[in-house]
Parts: sequence; C-alpha cells; structure tokens
Amino acid sequence: MPPANPFDDDKLHEECGVFGIVGVADAANFVALGLHALQHRGQEAGGIVSHDADEGFNSVRRFGYVRDNFTSQSLMQTLPGPIAIGHVRYSTAGSKAAVIRDVQPFFGEFSMGGAAIAHNGNITNANALRRELIERGSIFQSSSDSECIIHLMARSLQRNIPERMEDALRRVEGAFSIVAMTRTKMIGVRDPLGVRPLVLGKVADGWVLSSETCALDIIGAEHVRDIEPGEMVVISEKDGVESTFPFRPRKSRFCIFEHVYFSRPDSVIGGRSVYETRRQIGVELAKEAPVEADLVCPVPDSGTPAAIGFSQESGIPYAMGIIRNQYMGRTFIEPTEQIRNMGVRLKLNVNRALIKGKRVILVDDSVVRGTTSRKIKDMILDAGAAEVHFRIASPPTRWPCFYGVDTPEREKLLAATMTEDEMCEHLGVDSLRFISLNGLYRAAGAPDGRDTDSPQYCDACFSGEYPVAPSDMIEKGFETKTAAE
Amino acid sequence: MPPANPFDDDKLHEECGVFGIVGVADAANFVALGLHALQHRGQEAGGIVSHDADEGFNSVRRFGYVRDNFTSQSLMQTLPGPIAIGHVRYSTAGSKAAVIRDVQPFFGEFSMGGAAIAHNGNITNANALRRELIERGSIFQSSSDSECIIHLMARSLQRNIPERMEDALRRVEGAFSIVAMTRTKMIGVRDPLGVRPLVLGKVADGWVLSSETCALDIIGAEHVRDIEPGEMVVISEKDGVESTFPFRPRKSRFCIFEHVYFSRPDSVIGGRSVYETRRQIGVELAKEAPVEADLVCPVPDSGTPAAIGFSQESGIPYAMGIIRNQYMGRTFIEPTEQIRNMGVRLKLNVNRALIKGKRVILVDDSVVRGTTSRKIKDMILDAGAAEVHFRIASPPTRWPCFYGVDTPEREKLLAATMTEDEMCEHLGVDSLRFISLNGLYRAAGAPDGRDTDSPQYCDACFSGEYPVAPSDMIEKGFETKTAAE
Amino acid sequence: MPPANPFDDDKLHEECGVFGIVGVADAANFVALGLHALQHRGQEAGGIVSHDADEGFNSVRRFGYVRDNFTSQSLMQTLPGPIAIGHVRYSTAGSKAAVIRDVQPFFGEFSMGGAAIAHNGNITNANALRRELIERGSIFQSSSDSECIIHLMARSLQRNIPERMEDALRRVEGAFSIVAMTRTKMIGVRDPLGVRPLVLGKVADGWVLSSETCALDIIGAEHVRDIEPGEMVVISEKDGVESTFPFRPRKSRFCIFEHVYFSRPDSVIGGRSVYETRRQIGVELAKEAPVEADLVCPVPDSGTPAAIGFSQESGIPYAMGIIRNQYMGRTFIEPTEQIRNMGVRLKLNVNRALIKGKRVILVDDSVVRGTTSRKIKDMILDAGAAEVHFRIASPPTRWPCFYGVDTPEREKLLAATMTEDEMCEHLGVDSLRFISLNGLYRAAGAPDGRDTDSPQYCDACFSGEYPVAPSDMIEKGFETKTAAE
Amino acid sequence: MPPANPFDDDKLHEECGVFGIVGVADAANFVALGLHALQHRGQEAGGIVSHDADEGFNSVRRFGYVRDNFTSQSLMQTLPGPIAIGHVRYSTAGSKAAVIRDVQPFFGEFSMGGAAIAHNGNITNANALRRELIERGSIFQSSSDSECIIHLMARSLQRNIPERMEDALRRVEGAFSIVAMTRTKMIGVRDPLGVRPLVLGKVADGWVLSSETCALDIIGAEHVRDIEPGEMVVISEKDGVESTFPFRPRKSRFCIFEHVYFSRPDSVIGGRSVYETRRQIGVELAKEAPVEADLVCPVPDSGTPAAIGFSQESGIPYAMGIIRNQYMGRTFIEPTEQIRNMGVRLKLNVNRALIKGKRVILVDDSVVRGTTSRKIKDMILDAGAAEVHFRIASPPTRWPCFYGVDTPEREKLLAATMTEDEMCEHLGVDSLRFISLNGLYRAAGAPDGRDTDSPQYCDACFSGEYPVAPSDMIEKGFETKTAAE
Repeated sequence: MPPANPFDDDKLHEECGVFGIVGVADAANFVALGLHALQHRGQEAGGIVSHDADEGFNSVRRFGYVRDNFTSQSLMQTLPGPIAIGHVRYSTAGSKAAVIRDVQPFFGEFSMGGAAIAHNGNITNANALRRELIERGSIFQSSSDSECIIHLMARSLQRNIPERMEDALRRVEGAFSIVAMTRTKMIGVRDPLGVRPLVLGKVADGWVLSSETCALDIIGAEHVRDIEPGEMVVISEKDGVESTFPFRPRKSRFCIFEHVYFSRPDSVIGGRSVYETRRQIGVELAKEAPVEADLVCPVPDSGTPAAIGFSQESGIPYAMGIIRNQYMGRTFIEPTEQIRNMGVRLKLNVNRALIKGKRVILVDDSVVRGTTSRKIKDMILDAGAAEVHFRIASPPTRWPCFYGVDTPEREKLLAATMTEDEMCEHLGVDSLRFISLNGLYRAAGAPDGRDTDSPQYCDACFSGEYPVAPSDMIEKGFETKTAAE
Repeated sequence: MPPANPFDDDKLHEECGVFGIVGVADAANFVALGLHALQHRGQEAGGIVSHDADEGFNSVRRFGYVRDNFTSQSLMQTLPGPIAIGHVRYSTAGSKAAVIRDVQPFFGEFSMGGAAIAHNGNITNANALRRELIERGSIFQSSSDSECIIHLMARSLQRNIPERMEDALRRVEGAFSIVAMTRTKMIGVRDPLGVRPLVLGKVADGWVLSSETCALDIIGAEHVRDIEPGEMVVISEKDGVESTFPFRPRKSRFCIFEHVYFSRPDSVIGGRSVYETRRQIGVELAKEAPVEADLVCPVPDSGTPAAIGFSQESGIPYAMGIIRNQYMGRTFIEPTEQIRNMGVRLKLNVNRALIKGKRVILVDDSVVRGTTSRKIKDMILDAGAAEVHFRIASPPTRWPCFYGVDTPEREKLLAATMTEDEMCEHLGVDSLRFISLNGLYRAAGAPDGRDTDSPQYCDACFSGEYPVAPSDMIEKGFETKTAAE
Repeated sequence: MPPANPFDDDKLHEECGVFGIVGVADAANFVALGLHALQHRGQEAGGIVSHDADEGFNSVRRFGYVRDNFTSQSLMQTLPGPIAIGHVRYSTAGSKAAVIRDVQPFFGEFSMGGAAIAHNGNITNANALRRELIERGSIFQSSSDSECIIHLMARSLQRNIPERMEDALRRVEGAFSIVAMTRTKMIGVRDPLGVRPLVLGKVADGWVLSSETCALDIIGAEHVRDIEPGEMVVISEKDGVESTFPFRPRKSRFCIFEHVYFSRPDSVIGGRSVYETRRQIGVELAKEAPVEADLVCPVPDSGTPAAIGFSQESGIPYAMGIIRNQYMGRTFIEPTEQIRNMGVRLKLNVNRALIKGKRVILVDDSVVRGTTSRKIKDMILDAGAAEVHFRIASPPTRWPCFYGVDTPEREKLLAATMTEDEMCEHLGVDSLRFISLNGLYRAAGAPDGRDTDSPQYCDACFSGEYPVAPSDMIEKGFETKTAAE
Repeated sequence: MPPANPFDDDKLHEECGVFGIVGVADAANFVALGLHALQHRGQEAGGIVSHDADEGFNSVRRFGYVRDNFTSQSLMQTLPGPIAIGHVRYSTAGSKAAVIRDVQPFFGEFSMGGAAIAHNGNITNANALRRELIERGSIFQSSSDSECIIHLMARSLQRNIPERMEDALRRVEGAFSIVAMTRTKMIGVRDPLGVRPLVLGKVADGWVLSSETCALDIIGAEHVRDIEPGEMVVISEKDGVESTFPFRPRKSRFCIFEHVYFSRPDSVIGGRSVYETRRQIGVELAKEAPVEADLVCPVPDSGTPAAIGFSQESGIPYAMGIIRNQYMGRTFIEPTEQIRNMGVRLKLNVNRALIKGKRVILVDDSVVRGTTSRKIKDMILDAGAAEVHFRIASPPTRWPCFYGVDTPEREKLLAATMTEDEMCEHLGVDSLRFISLNGLYRAAGAPDGRDTDSPQYCDACFSGEYPVAPSDMIEKGFETKTAAE
C-alpha cells in the first residue's frame, strides 16, 4: 500500500490515462511505453492486460511508476500476445488507503469469453448503479465506479462483447473514454459529450488507442484521428477499424482544463497543439492584465508556455527565476518532521542572484487552494524581489469536477470563497490576475470567445455549469450553482 | 548492487557532492536536505555520518537517491547528534559493479578518536600511494582513491586530526574539496588550485560546508563566503571557524565546466551566478555564430539558460521544441530489449505541432560522444523541421578530465577525432557551432578572455593543458598534449 | 508470486486451515496465532478479515508464512475489531502460478451488508456451478472453487446472511468446513459427511472456531466440542452459539488421513488424540508386520509416533537414525542446478555413526510417489546399514482425493500401478509393509475394523470408494473404481 | 539490519561455523551447502568468498539464512572459481545492532596478493591487540575481534601468506578454528588447545575443511580426519595437504558443550558420535537420578537423544509430550505486544491428551537463565500433569564462556546464584537433577570421569576453570573463580 503524498502540490489532477494496441508482436511492451508517456495523467498505479492465443489473458497491476514496474524482461514476459491494453491512475482524494484491487484494467469472464476494460473519466450515477447491481446479486471487488461497467456487461442479454458494452454504457451517466479488449478485438468509446480525450493511431500493422498523441510519438505511431464524442470503434487485426455511434447525439463539450494543465504540451487535441494554446493564453493574459516589471518567470514546469507567451506579448524578458530539483519524487515513506515541513522547498528553489531587487511576474497555470502560491511568494520575497505579480493561465477555479478529475471539496477552493482582490491580499502579492473565461476560449481556438448559450467546452470548474447532472453527488447533498446561488 | 544505466545520456558527470553541518540539533536531517539539493552532482549513492555524545559515530550508506533513503524517521533516528557530514557520488565509468563499501564518507578510528571524510575530486597519484600503503601494512576496504587519505592520516605522527589531515593531504596530488569531521569539529579543505567548489554557510548557530550554494538555500542558510583554494577551515561550536593555508600557494584554477554544466543554475560560484554565466554564453554564442531561423529551442534541461540568452541576443523567438518526460528515472533493472533501444525517446519528445516546417536552432551545453545529439537531430527532422542548427554552449570537449569528472576515454570523445566540420557532417545537421574558448571565458567573467600564459580556470577538457600532471594515468600510458602532438 | 517448490517432498497435502473468533478485543491477533498453529495445513498463503464498528471490514491476504506476515504491529493495526476470521492455504498442484486474488477469505458485499468466508475442503460440482453463475451474470475474481459459495449467496432470495449461506450450501456438493463472518456474527458449517474437521472453543468472553484443537491451545482457549457433520452454528457476542442442522442427515465419513498425517499430533479429533492414534498404528504395524532388526527409526518428523509405537510393541530400540535440518524452508527462488538436485539431502541427513552395520526399520507415514522413499533408502545404505525395512503407517495410497487434499494424478501414485512386492523391489529395500485398512481402523478407534457396508471414515484414497461422486472430475473423464475395474 | 529476537530461547549459542573447499568446479556452491548444514552454529548472517583466475576474489555477505541468500543462480554466479570459503555467525549478545561489515569472511589485500579468513572462536586479548594496531596506523572496519588477525597479517614481515598467518596467530590468545584462503591455497588452523572443532574431508579431487562432519555428508565428502589442536594445514590442488604445528604444544581441551548441545547429533567429533554421547548422557542421568514416573519426554528438539537414553535405562516409556511448531522462525520485525508475550508458546505446545494425569520426566540439555524451563513447566501443569520432574543433560551452567559462545552475564545464569534445591523451588517442579561433571565425562568417553589435575575437556562454563586467561575481560573487571571465591 503506497503512502499518501504528505506534500501539498496544490494542483487539480487528471485521474487516468488509457492506452491499447492490437496487431503487433509483444503488444504489452508498446502499452508500457505508451503508459510511460501518459504517466502525467496518473502516477499512483498502473496495470496492463494482454491476451495470447496459447496463454489466454494475463494481467499485471502495480503501484508506482510505469518505468519502475513495466520495464523488466521477466515481468513483461508474463504479458505475451498481440493485443494489450493498459491504464495509469491517480488516487482520488477522499478514498481510504489505496488497494491493488482498485487498479485497472478490470477483467470479467463472460460466457462468451473474457474482456478487460480501462476507463478514464467518472460515472456520475455510479452509486445508484452499484446499489442496483448488488441488489441483483453482483459482487463488487473494488471501490471503483468503473467496475459497474463490467457488471452491467455481465448481465447484458446481448450475444457479443461490443454489444454488451453498448448496452452497459447506455445505463452510464458521466464522462468516459474507454479502451477495452476481448481475445481478439480492441474497443474504444468516448461518451457523447467527449469530455475526456481519446485518439486513434497506427504503427506498422497495428492500431493504437491512446488518451493523448504524445503516447503515439513514443512508439513511433502515426496520429490517424481523434475518436469522436459518442463514437465506438471496434478494432481487430482481421477487420481493421469499425465505427458506430451508439448513443443519442449531443454537442461536444471537451474538458478545457486538458488544454490548461492536464495534457502534455507536446500533445495535439482536437487538431490544436496544447503548447500553442498555452502560449496563446500567455499572450491573452499579457493583453488583459499587463504590468510593468523586469522579468517574466514561469512557475515550473506547467507555467512555462504561458510565461513564454506573456514575455513575447509584453516584451518583458523571460527568465528562470525558480529552479526545479529534478530528483524530487512524489511520495515519502514515514518522512521525518523536517521533511514533512519542507513542502515546496524540496522541489523548487529561487534563483536568488537573478531575482534580487527585481520586479517579477510569476506565471502559473492555476490557483487551487493557494497554499503553494503563498509559499512561492514567500520564497521570492525572501530572495529580495522588489515586487511580485501573479498571472494565472486559467480563470478562478470555483467548482469541483465530477468527470474524472481529483478536486478538493468546494470549500477548500480558494476562488470559491474569495474574490480576486481578497485572494491577492490573502496571497500577499503586489497584483494577482486570472485570465478571463472568454480569453481562455479565444486562446483555445474560439475567436469569439465562449458561446454562453451553448459553450464549446466543459468549463464547469470555472463556471459551475455542469453539462451532466452529478446525480450521485446531488443525492449526497451537493448544491449546484442554481441551487447554491 | 544497482544496475548500470543502459541509456547513453552522453554527458560528462560530476562525480561527487559534499555537505556538512555542525552546531544544530539533528544535524543529519540538514545533511539529508543538503545532499538532496546536491543530487545532480551524484545520483548513484549517498552516505551520512553523524556523531552524538551518547551514541558515538553512526553511519548510513546507501545506493539510490537521497530522497528514497534519507527521509524516513526510522532511518534518520539512527543518525543522532549535532554534527554530521554527507556525500553523494556518481559511479566512475571504468569500475566493476558498484559496492557499498566504495560509498563515502569513509571512516577511520585513530588512537585519538574517529574521523570521517567526504571527498569531491580525484587524487592523481592514488595508485602510487595505495601501493606504498599496502606495502607498509594498511588494509584497503574499497577501490576508491579517496580511501588513501584516511590511511595516510592513520599513519601520521601528528597528535590531532586536523594536523594529521594536513600531513596526509601534503602527500596527495590532484583535486580535492573535502568535508571531514571528528567528534566535535568539522573540517573543510580545498586543494591549492581550488578545482572543485566548496562554500561556507551559516544557519542559526550552525556552520555549513557545501559544494554549492543551492544546498544552503534549501536549509535556509546564509552564504558566508567560498572556501579559498588551498584553505583549510576547522569549525566547532565552541571556537567557530579557524582558517589556515597549509599548502604552498598557487594561482587558482577553478573548473570552468562547473559553470557550463555541473553546477545548478541557482548556485553562485566565486561571486558569479551560474544561471547568468550560462545565459551570457548564449549571448556570446549568438554573436559568434548567428544564423537565420524561426525558433531557438533548448535541449532540456541543461541548454535552457543559454537558449534564453541566444534568443534575447538574436531576437529569434524562444520555444519549447523538445519536451522532457518528468517520470524518467536513471536506471532500469533487467530492461526489455525494446526499452533498451528506446534511449533518449523515453526521456524526450519533440513538440511536433510546433516544429513542423520551421528552421530550428537547438542549444545544448556540450557534445561528448555525439550519440544523443544525433538522436535528437533525427527526432527533430522526423517531426518535419525545415532546418536544424546546433549551437553548443561550450568549446569542443577534446580531453578527458582527471580531477573528479567522469569522462569517456579520449578516443570516444567526438571532438578528439573530428574537426568541427566533420562533426557537423557526422551529426547530419545544417550547421554546428561551438562557443570559442575566449567567448566562454568572457561569459564567465573574464572581459579579455583567456589569459594564455596563466589561464584563470582549469579548462583541460577543452585545451588539454592539465594544471596537475595526471601521474597515475601517465604511468598507465596516457599521452598528454605535448606528448600527443 | 511465490516460486513453486522444486523439491519433491512426496506427501499428500491438506489444502487449508480455517480459524475465527468473535467477542474479544483485537480479534485478528488471535486469528494470526491460530493460523500460525494451523500452518501445517497450508503454507503457501494466508489471509485475515476483521470487522470493526468504525472501520468496517478490513482484509489482508499475503503469500508466505503467517509468522512472516501477520506478526507486525503496523500490519495488525489495519485489522481492528472484535470479530475476525482467517485462512491458510496450500497451492493446488495443477494450477498456474499463484495469484493473490485466489487467497481466502473471500469477501462479498450484499444488500444487507458484507460477509467473508474461509473454506476448507473442495466442491466437487464447482465447474458446473461456475458455468451456471457466469451464464447468469456473475463475475468471478479468482480461479478458486470456493468463490462459487459467495456468488450463490449473492443471488439467494433470503433476507439474512446465515440463511443465504444455507441456500448456497444446499447447491454445493463435496466437502466443506467453513468459517464465515458478517459484521457481528461468526458462522461455522460442516458438510453432512463431516469430511474435514472443525472444532468449537471458548476463551474468556470469546468464541472460537478452528480446524484443529492445537490452535485453541496456542491462545489458551478451552475445547468445547467438535462441530457436528451437517451442523451450522451462528455465533454472536449477544446471543452466543445457535445451532441448526440445515442439510439432509447422513452418516458421517470423517477423513481418516487426518489421523494418519494431516492433523498435528497434539490435536484431538472426534475425542481421539491424534498422537495416540498414530502410536497405536505403530503398535498394530509391529503386530501385522514384525521383522528382526537392531533399530526402529522414524522418517522425520511425521513417522515419529508410529515408530515409537512400533518400538514399544516389538521391543526393538527406538533411535534417531535420520536427522532433520531445522533451517530448511519450503521454497527457493531461482535455485542453482546443484541445489535443485540435492532434494531430500538438504533436509535430512543419516546419523552415519549410529546406522553403520545395523539392521534398520524405517517407519514412515505414507508412500505417495515413492521418490523420497528411494532417496532415503539410498542414504541409509550409503551410510552402511546392513538391512533396510520400510514399515508404512497407512495402507497403499491408490486413489486421488477430491475433498480438499492435494494428490498427484492417479498414474503417479506408486500404489496405483504396483503391488506391494513390486513396490518393495522398486524401492530396493529388504522388506516393505503397509498397515492393513482394518489395522488402521482399529488404531483409529474401531475395535472391529472397517465396516465394509458402511465405513466409519472416508478412506477413498485407499479404497477408491468415494462417498460423494466427484462429478466435475467424472465430466473430465476420471474413472471411478467401478468404472476402472 | 535484522531485528533482534524478542523471544527468550534461553540457550547458549555457538557463535560461528566455518567451511572451505578447494579443487572443485564452482566451489562456492559446495560452500553454500556446507554452510546450510552448519546453520545451527550461526543463524544471523553468512558470507562466502571465492577466487577465480579470471575474476579474482569475489565476496557476498548477507544477513539471514544460507538457504535464503546463497541458493539463487544469479547470486551464485557472482562467486565463480575452484576455491571458496564461508562462514555463518550468531550475533553476540552485548553488541549494538548488527552491521554487514562485521560479517565474515574478512578480506585483506597484501602486497603479495589477497587473503580471506573465516574464524570460529574468540580472541581473548583482542582489545589489547586492537589498541596496539590502531596506535600503529591500522584502520579497523568492523567491531569484530577476528579482524585483528588480518591486520596482524598485513604487518607481518614474512613473505608468504601462510607464514604471515603463523606470525599473526602467535600473537593471538584464545580459541580459534580458522579456515582461510589465498588465490590458490586453503589454510586450516586450530588453536593449541583445540577448543573448537575443525575436520578435514575429501570429495572427488577436492579437499574440504569444516566445523563438523554433518557438512561433509551433505556434499557427499568423506571424513578424512580431524585437524589436530595446534595444527596448521595448507592445502592446494597441486600439492595436496601440507601439515605443520607452528605453536608450542599443549594438552588438548576440546569444548565439552559441543557434545552437549552445539554440534549436530549426526556429527562425529574426535571419533565420537555426538548422538551416542547424548544418548549415553541420558543413560548416566537415569542411573544418577532415577525417579518413578509414567513418561519420559524430551524438550524438543535438543533433549531428544538424552531422553531416549533415559527411557532405555529406566524402562519408563518414551513419548512426545511436547510438540514443536515447524513453522517458527527466529525473528519477528516489530511484533505486536501479543506476539511478544507468547514466547515459547509460539514454538511449543503440550500434547494435552497424552500428558493429562501423568507423572512426567522432562529431559532438557541445559538450564541457562531458567526462563524457558519455567514456561514449559507451566504449560505441562496447565495440561494436567500429575508430577513434573526435570532431568538436565549437563551440569549447572555457572560461568560465562569466552571462547566463542554467546553466554549471558554471570549474574543472569540461574546456577551462578542458586543451589540445585533453590533452582528446583524457583522452577516449581517436583524434582530437578543435573548430570554430574563426572557423569558427563563418562558419557563423553572418559570411563574414569574427569581428570581433576588435567581435565580432558574445556568445561569452564561448569567448573569456572579457564584454560586460557580471559585477559580482556579481566581488564574490564571480570573476576575468575579463584578471585571470586
């Protein structure tokens, strides 16, 4: 059981990454590489399932980084075969200690054979589904919402696995990008809103499904296209890619925070370079919230592209005012009191000789609880900065996400309880400005900004407008914006 | 026994970092933090020795990162007391498999009490010393050259440990920055040329010795001054810092590669910001070797400051054309063939959407064997770059270092066997330019460049001019420049 | 995943031991002790489930010995509460590599709350049940037959867990001694034939269920009585022990091999001391098969009580002719060729000075494949014995067990293919005699021997008369005695 | 660092076993088997050094059992070559936590090449030697007395290693049986009194040295002879065995406790079977201290041979009244309070059905602190025994051993502070009798008992007559018998 991270890193976290491949020798090796490239989407644990004609299904699920678990010959030899899928996950905040049976992919043996599924997203009616399934005699092995899907499939009356999956997913509300496999077929699905990403790639004779394109690059696969919102693809060596749209069509609402922070800057989503969107956010931010200063510095590493954009638009020199320690890991087992209290100083150090006496603009991607922002401000002032101006590459984060992102409870979100001015005072900086929601949409490729009547993205964390009602949470007492205001 | 890194990272490597503190409670905790901040100077192993009035000397030496070994309460409780020193090390290229008894600090029990020493540098007459000591009945426990010092001390006729250390070091040739301790005193020494860095800091009532200032920052210590070349300081809670200069005075020859690559950019050495020196190298390089292009991209992470300087001087936009995977570690145990062949792609990915169709200037800190440079060039061209121009922030590396840096044998250094033009053709890039030795000296604070008669720095890796004759190597057949040319 | 034992130890193996307790603080600690005392019933893996009013159900399942897993404070603190059950298991011969999800107790969440079960025995219609359950939408997590029970319970229409368990067990054929638990109740059941043992104990205010009485002794519990064949007890702190007999009554058929080898000699089963039964087997054997000799030596350790009895009846001195190495474990990871070939010599050594020139009677509990018997004979002759006579404390083992014992396939049982004389010749000993089935029954408390029409025990491994038809095996082609002969 | 055993097992412990072989392929594999057979002489740690013409010296030292460390192919491949020696050790009572650098064999590089030594025994003037060596500039790496030998060798003026060893051992007082090796030669030495055992064996073309003959048996080696007290043998493939007697001759004083407890019963020492000596002790004891009773039961496992002898002489039936749990290990990491309090009940259980109402004679090998004896008596009475009579197969243990045995301080030895009657009362048994010293000598082959003027054995632990003055201990204040009385 891995220890929790005692260090507040004060970010929202993507909860999962998925990857699958069919039609290549030793498919699991490719999955390991793909998951390594998707590690930023989930660092707590990973799993791979493969199928081989002789050996049947095999599965390995482990806590820790992909590179520490899925790189050794002896382990990878236990995952033979030409088809494999995998999953990396981040632990959810509220849960009890992590247990290996919660690690995906999940596997189920049906009367027509086995299937494994890996799920990125979150099922908003999982509690209700689980109650119903238990009532009817299903036995759950994990605390994961995703396990509902495999039980719904087990009870479907359909005769093959893709149809059973359709059956199951029609009962499911929320966000899902799924990669699944049978003995010979790989299946990819995105929910009708397409909240989470999923892309299709090709390498030699093999087909690939991946959360992001950066994982295609590492195995040298070509990016064919994105899986569409509401699309299901069934892929086999024999028949190639077969596409259907089993759900009622809806206008897509891709997660805009994927552009702000979750996805890797070298990925391309919906035809847009994530890096370029982030740089453009910096440009917009420099226009919206200019300030006189000597240096523009990113908060490493996620603030870098926006800081470059801000510097380019403002003409203020870009500089590395904060240096990241490359040897910092995520977790410490039973740390000393001193280590526990170090927090961000274990990871970041101010470039004192550079900062001293300077007016500094710090560009960060987001402010969640604000605890890290305060510590960074302290470090910068200790180093002798004349002024500190925060520029944030996203609007204030005011609402929790229920679609597969680990968010603190609403009352812990700084922007849920304070105005921008109050936050500025709370953080003790000379100025604090967030990009506007319209500015963010413009940077993300909507020249006219946000379409208020029918927004182009899911931006519930900023706007409180949830495209799918979070029914489990409402049952538990969560008040949506309309209720709250 | 840790596995060797199967991945060519194609850099020179500092072999060690040292840190010590006296006069604070739980001194070993501070040492752990200091070593974490010095981890870039040695990733293979680390050790800490502490002394407590009740418990005597205690020592822990481990393979792996500081953060994985020296952060747990249960371990740190075995290192009590108000005085402690520590060491991180990089394995030397030629040695057999790493063994824990080669990990420093080394400890010796003398008739007047115990002493521990941690050594950064390299003893160039170690083989001769070792032969002599064995002949006289000393038993070596390690294959490390540094162990000679403790045996020389054991056989000294002096009555106290600092004087025994003086005695010992007068027999030693080469480069050394040493932090040592007795039951109550911390000792710091730099060789007469001052090849390796060593700085003095102060935190509350405690005194600190450290390879670099970045390790003072992490514990909140003030940078008092650098230890001088040829200086020995003996520090105790009771008497504070006592300084002597036991060696014959010589003109200092600090390692210029510390500025180019080894030291962290947030450190200050000899009064100069490492970051600023590197940025200035980029400025000089843009003046010396301009080229028309669309983007200036660093090779992450070491090329970043010079790339910023190059962009600022040339006016060509700075961009993140190569993205580093943050979850890449150094070593893999028994890796699969596929992992073994991935090499740099496990660590770096090209930002394809940005690079496509562009003329790209890549700024890197150095070219050693050139293997990584070729792979990066291939990745950039595969992504569709129109042109690739390499600009290198150091002169061609033509000679091995014998003063504590891990260098390949001379014949494996690309620049030892090829001209700049041949290297350009070998790497297959549109242009390749190195900064001149004079340009480097200017960036490092010598406005008139290198003083040919009496160079201000040690630059043997570029010039072949060794300030201390590498006598062990000459005995083994190494030909110095004069001999070779 | 534990490695398989490369050393033929040539015994039948009990597959499981079960233990539970309710009504004491830190119940899991008692379970750990009880399982330690039952370790001889299963060495591969163990598991404990506990329930606490605040913490709910907790579960730990591990490969390896109880003493290596369930003794540390930090682990046992994760298993709080006044009720707990546990299980030790031996791996079944034919299965693939062991996986942790096959380790019991199994847990299921039902609509009226959770339940955990630990099963000793074997379900002879498990394949048919599993097929049916999967057809109806159950998802199996393990390859264990015992998991059927929890799925049958999940689908029962009864309103409480004990009734659901009755419902489930009425569908189950074969042998079972089960210890189960809900949040507040412990449940014990034995199949109608009572093939496997299960006893009831009392310690302070707590009630205990255990496979054997030796596990009552270790926690200082009093042996109250055996659970009856076909009996179900439901035990709670509040209501004490409630007993029902939910199955159609049948005459009991307790496993006679428990007396011969499986149970510990310090246990009492059905009112009989196991040690005394074994000693009495030696007495019967000396009467049935006397021989002139100098020494009676046990094959350690299981042959000791019968050897003592043989010596007492015959008057031939008892001696330790074979010495066991106490530091021998069960498994070796990736052993050298030499270790692999050592086999029994790693564990046993002949007392050469004692044996030389002597006529030796060796008393062993059973002959399964005969491989170990041959090696022991070789060792004894190498040491210079004049004659070697084998006396075996059980009849020839001719048939596999399907009721929870790990037996080789029938063709590998020496006695399935050879007569007693052929075996004697095959083993190369001066004489070989097995106790008769009647003699065994007499030693086990039936003064008139075996009741041929209605045997008092299950002795299928000797007689081929299976009291429950092994339907899964018959479906796979197994031929019972009538069919075979 | 292995945890200390929290369970009082209340025995004296041999501190070491040694084994070496020359002239066979993969010599280290034989050493591993030999050490496994000698594991009873030291369970804490073990080490093997081998030499190969290509690879030079290699060494592996590990905490834990031989079977857990020295059986894997991958490890044993690191120990190639035709010559190897090994050592198992028990930790000494008073020392701080165990550290790997204290684990033997010790290795030293001399000007004429390397040598490794493994030492069984104890150097009684080690403190004085260590002081002198440090004064002259030797650096000790361990806290082990045995390291003195290698430093004395390093400073010898002799030209070859066997002569240096003679030189060194002439300075050493105390008990030593040493197995050492150079690149091509194996050396065996016993101190002039021959306190510890050492035997010579032969297997194919290879020569073996071992603490006991049971380790010859496991590799199929023939027992050639014992090494004589004061003898040094130098053995090579080329020249065979060369014997010298470098020390001043003295009458031998072999440790009589090797016969009582330390050695394995299947070993032959000085021409006597250890098993037979122990059985004979039981016979003598039955003559010296008869008592009416129903059963004679050994305290497992060490009391078994004497119990057999007692039963045979007295005619009272032999029975297994106490059953040992085979799955008990020596150490527990961070055990729960309950485990800590279990003590002997984790290991032993009374055979209640057998014992109830009976008059029981318990035969044990020795009484050290008496703590275990009390617990066993309690268990026996709890089980309903009518009477309990202890018969002890050694005289009262009144004095500590300074020749390589782990003994409690004198004041903790029960017999040092109580008479036999007081002990009987303290233990709460119906009678308690120890064998007489003369009876023990008779059983050990001296028909006329102990020669008071010149005893045939070292029996200092019983008599307080130390054949070599324990000079280090006397310096620390230990009072010998003459002084004490």
